[in-house]
Amino acid sequence: MKDIYQQSVDMHRTHGGKIALQNKIAIENKDDLSLAYSPGVAGASRAIDANVAEVKQLTLKKNTIGIVSDGSAILGLGNLGPHAAIPVMEGKAALFKRFADVDAFPICVDTQDTEEIIATVKRIAPVFGGINLEDISAPRCFEIEERLCAELDIPVMHDDQHGTAVVVLAGLMNALKLRGGKKEDLTVVMSGAGAAGVAIADILRVWGVGNIICCDSKGIISSQRDDLNDVKKRLRAVSNKNDIRGELADAIAGADVFIGVSVVGTLTQDMVASMHDDPIIFALANPEPEIMPDEAHTAGALVVATGRSDFPNQVNNVLAFPGIFRGALDNGIAQFRDEMFVAAAEAIAGCITEPRADYVIPDPFDTTVPKKVAQAIK
Amino acid sequence: MKDIYQQSVDMHRTHGGKIALQNKIAIENKDDLSLAYSPGVAGASRAIDANVAEVKQLTLKKNTIGIVSDGSAILGLGNLGPHAAIPVMEGKAALFKRFADVDAFPICVDTQDTEEIIATVKRIAPVFGGINLEDISAPRCFEIEERLCAELDIPVMHDDQHGTAVVVLAGLMNALKLRGGKKEDLTVVMSGAGAAGVAIADILRVWGVGNIICCDSKGIISSQRDDLNDVKKRLRAVSNKNDIRGELADAIAGADVFIGVSVVGTLTQDMVASMHDDPIIFALANPEPEIMPDEAHTAGALVVATGRSDFPNQVNNVLAFPGIFRGALDNGIAQFRDEMFVAAAEAIAGCITEPRADYVIPDPFDTTVPKKVAQAIK
Repeated sequence: MKDIYQQSVDMHRTHGGKIALQNKIAIENKDDLSLAYSPGVAGASRAIDANVAEVKQLTLKKNTIGIVSDGSAILGLGNLGPHAAIPVMEGKAALFKRFADVDAFPICVDTQDTEEIIATVKRIAPVFGGINLEDISAPRCFEIEERLCAELDIPVMHDDQHGTAVVVLAGLMNALKLRGGKKEDLTVVMSGAGAAGVAIADILRVWGVGNIICCDSKGIISSQRDDLNDVKKRLRAVSNKNDIRGELADAIAGADVFIGVSVVGTLTQDMVASMHDDPIIFALANPEPEIMPDEAHTAGALVVATGRSDFPNQVNNVLAFPGIFRGALDNGIAQFRDEMFVAAAEAIAGCITEPRADYVIPDPFDTTVPKKVAQAIK
Repeated sequence: MKDIYQQSVDMHRTHGGKIALQNKIAIENKDDLSLAYSPGVAGASRAIDANVAEVKQLTLKKNTIGIVSDGSAILGLGNLGPHAAIPVMEGKAALFKRFADVDAFPICVDTQDTEEIIATVKRIAPVFGGINLEDISAPRCFEIEERLCAELDIPVMHDDQHGTAVVVLAGLMNALKLRGGKKEDLTVVMSGAGAAGVAIADILRVWGVGNIICCDSKGIISSQRDDLNDVKKRLRAVSNKNDIRGELADAIAGADVFIGVSVVGTLTQDMVASMHDDPIIFALANPEPEIMPDEAHTAGALVVATGRSDFPNQVNNVLAFPGIFRGALDNGIAQFRDEMFVAAAEAIAGCITEPRADYVIPDPFDTTVPKKVAQAIK
């Protein structure tokens, strides 16, 4: 039996990739040709020239987004560059089509220079109704997203940040329904302050979590730390309200929720046992979580979520990004706002009417999810 | 009855553009998801990281080209910029799919700076197996094409140049079969030295036409002219072997072939009457040709071709570009050469077994054409 990686290589080779173009119109005679191309198409060009907003009605821009990556942080593989990133971005495009009928085209850029990436995306933006940034390493991903959001008139989202954050928040909402308690009273401890970690901390704050304590590989992000980059400085300013110091173990004693976007082995059973009653654990390190679900439950965890499809409660971005962009395209969103991401999380959480400890996050194939998410993006 | 331009606008609005993406693979369960995306896709990424040539087998690069325009010379509309160019490029993509099953995606760049266009195309090249440049004004189009051909390892072609040139040559080949005579003995007079004119002169020279005399709006391009840009200087060096001077009327007396890529009214009946017996006329100005076919025939023309679908012998690029890129993708062509374009013209001409005066160029819907052209590109 071939392993899944070789099976996937074989599948890619058989089909020559995973996506293709298709025509929405028939071109079977001279009349068709005259409407789709010269001379009739000049009518569409002139209409757009007269009113550029028409481009969103008369062209593929209406339903097409660009998936942009520089290949600097591909899955768990690291910095393999733009060519090796293509299968991942093409897979993402296939998911956009499958789950929300969004036409997505992968653009893998042959540069890892922040300014060059920004300039390139701005120059190719005319045909796209939105930009999904993907697998771009931190901290460059923050500046690239921020600048493109400010400088383009189409919505831009770095999915590794916000897609993950939305699904985590959805799971947390349902876990809290099971456990009881108010979000304002929660203490959430995070491990990992990269792209996903920063976005998760942001969305939890906007949602209204009482106290968020962020740790990176050097320990708790506090006023004591003098080794922080700009992004972590910003994080420090809005987290850790009691300014506690020390290691992850110091932060986690008595906490209600652990969210790990770090590395295997970060969370021990002793740490889980030291948390407040019925703790909620998101162990999202890939492929091996910060703690295995059975170990976490043995140590007292009420709910455990991971990034893996072979355990319950998979945090899978496919629950978020297709619906988010479907809603952005349908509702003419020019820019994403934090409140939209919170609304998307509420929509995902709401797809489960009776949460259980092993079912706080919907199945990726629950077809109501992208529809509900799209409705929430307005 | 609405005119064709309004009909086309309506059609574009009804469908929201003309092209969409489609998936080549089913994604219906967790196993499918694991193969198309995480974790299986890592196998394809690693295979490409180990051997970058695999990207042409395992991804959309195998069958996908980029159609790049800056909207500076859209059809007969002029410089309307990147948004108004989208319907034209999308139409071109639909033709690529319809006539040669090539997946083509439009990239309309929001810059008209030569260096920025070159840099942008180089940066987005990883996902594409070829680049079709389109509707970029002269003389920038020459430098952009030349530089991209030299600096990329995928084939690059400016279709307004070479697509047109290939179809003109195909028509001339068949016209000459009717008229008799050798290419080495021909005198061809051209009117117009823009993108198409320069490329037509080039392909005629490579094919072996005896004497080519080029005229622009200021008259014959000769050693007397001191107002020539670099492209026209290069043209002068390889044309007009007797270095004749003067106006178009001076050049055309006694010539065998006229090829116009200029403006309506350029060619008079008197000029046609002054040509050698049974002259061959390509009057390609759009939408109104340099001379109307009936006027040219009355004045003695044997064969008349135009750019219009409502007259016989339409010079339509769709006979060339789909098959040219189909062949380039299938045969692993890294760079187009002039000889390939001549071979493509021979393939198109050969699709007509018995040329007639009103049938020297095949019908655009002749399905044998793209197949024959693709076979010729090797």
